[in-house]
Amino acid sequence: MTDDLLGAARDGTDGADGVQPYVRAFEALDADPAHLLLVAEIGGEVVATMQLSFIPGLARRGALRGQVEGVRVRADRRSSGLGRALITWSRDEAERRGCALIQLTSDKQRLEAHRFYADLGFTASHVGFKLEL
Amino acid sequence: MTDDLLGAARDGTDGADGVQPYVRAFEALDADPAHLLLVAEIGGEVVATMQLSFIPGLARRGALRGQVEGVRVRADRRSSGLGRALITWSRDEAERRGCALIQLTSDKQRLEAHRFYADLGFTASHVGFKLEL
Repeated sequence: MTDDLLGAARDGTDGADGVQPYVRAFEALDADPAHLLLVAEIGGEVVATMQLSFIPGLARRGALRGQVEGVRVRADRRSSGLGRALITWSRDEAERRGCALIQLTSDKQRLEAHRFYADLGFTASHVGFKLEL
Repeated sequence: MTDDLLGAARDGTDGADGVQPYVRAFEALDADPAHLLLVAEIGGEVVATMQLSFIPGLARRGALRGQVEGVRVRADRRSSGLGRALITWSRDEAERRGCALIQLTSDKQRLEAHRFYADLGFTASHVGFKLEL
């Protein structure tokens, strides 16, 4: 995550707790079937990660929705098809689980990412609002 | 939900299953502490609803995020502060549960909604991508 321009300021392991917050979060995610953590490995090294969550809801006749978060590809492996493989797998898995749609938000500054998602069939139909707490 | 211009085409109870898909979805949501369904009542009638989900993740030091979905206010009760009350309560609840942020997406066509969320302190920092399955 520290390899990401926008994420670097929010993430890191040099706080008093070091890596512990990440280990705790990983264990909670790993234990919950509503959330999948995907990784892409090359030669035994993790070079890309993302999270796919399944969110129940009432709209669209009680449809489940797949939500993509935290797509990260190691800087030296970008534009090599890894992101495409992760998102394509996620779309298929969301379909297998009966989701009515798959969704994600991407920072307005990430213009390359926007083209990438549009190429994969996503529609930039919404505005993503965030409020830091 | 049929009271919503953009939602009306996707929702309804006149299919073969009638209201059953909604009942099943409600029961699943109601049983899961990661999801809250909020309603606003006036004189015993439900006049507004929304969903607040808590999504774990690795980013931001393993932070939980609060996600708002399905904000709906009955047509004759709009602009009366009900939406503001629901979102404000949700923001406070997300803070109580230790969320690092609260997020939502709003269709690009809903210009009034965008002003509403900006007024409540949300930043329109992201593009929301959706892909129907």
